[in-house]
Amino acid sequence: MRILGVDPGLATVGLGLIEAESAHDFRAIEWLTIGTDSGLPLQKRLHEIHRDLATFLAGAQPELAVVEKLYFAANKQTALDVAHARGVILQTLEECAIPLLEPTPMQLKLCITGDGGADKRQMQDMVAHLLHLQEIPRPDDAADALALAIFGAVRGNSVRLVA
Amino acid sequence: MRILGVDPGLATVGLGLIEAESAHDFRAIEWLTIGTDSGLPLQKRLHEIHRDLATFLAGAQPELAVVEKLYFAANKQTALDVAHARGVILQTLEECAIPLLEPTPMQLKLCITGDGGADKRQMQDMVAHLLHLQEIPRPDDAADALALAIFGAVRGNSVRLVA
Repeated sequence: MRILGVDPGLATVGLGLIEAESAHDFRAIEWLTIGTDSGLPLQKRLHEIHRDLATFLAGAQPELAVVEKLYFAANKQTALDVAHARGVILQTLEECAIPLLEPTPMQLKLCITGDGGADKRQMQDMVAHLLHLQEIPRPDDAADALALAIFGAVRGNSVRLVA
Repeated sequence: MRILGVDPGLATVGLGLIEAESAHDFRAIEWLTIGTDSGLPLQKRLHEIHRDLATFLAGAQPELAVVEKLYFAANKQTALDVAHARGVILQTLEECAIPLLEPTPMQLKLCITGDGGADKRQMQDMVAHLLHLQEIPRPDDAADALALAIFGAVRGNSVRLVA
């Protein structure tokens, strides 16, 4: 099963694509970021995200997408910007008929490290370990996206085991 | 010049379309709302907004769109929901290559009533007056959208006078 994790943002969207044979057997296919130019008006940046994500999805053909639930950041304007981008990302995924999981940050940390309060470094170490990578994937947004994809493999599989 | 005002929301998007001959001469063409079902997942609601707005734009062919800038509401979750929908709306407008104005709530109130602290009723009365309507347009979201479209006519024209 091909699973895409997406870390939303207005300046940078992280994408992490994995192939999961089971809840314990998966490998990274690719990770990358979509960037938008901060000098452009908001609507053009959102359109770039839509266009580049739709192009990526057409090639990658994921069967499941995972996008973290959004909570308020210290900076309210940043939270609103991310929510604009996240809206476009969810709409684009739905346009391509890709099922979606939306874990909370704590659910994601628990799943990857067993610790709901794990820090960024713990998360990145586990992502590298679980995907058998020699180094932590860069940049951070792409590593976060791979963590979300792994969540999809574990959770997606649990759901099937129960059903 | 055909101008569309859009009042963003996740449950209801208000649309108000006017034809403006000048900054003082305009008439309402139509006003309506796009509604989404609160029982549906977020991504499906966002996709409905995209689809219905794109269909409307294809028929209405506005030359300018006006969408109010978003500020934080008392309810943070509502602000995030609106921001998701607003992101999809801006991306859809850009997809259709429609230029955009984003007034602040105060700029809008000042433009329509001459009073930056005008209340909802004052705004609605002026919208009905300016558009020569016998009654206040309903529902509120559509009246708000018509106010935004009028802002576009006045501001769009001012910009042209200066240029």
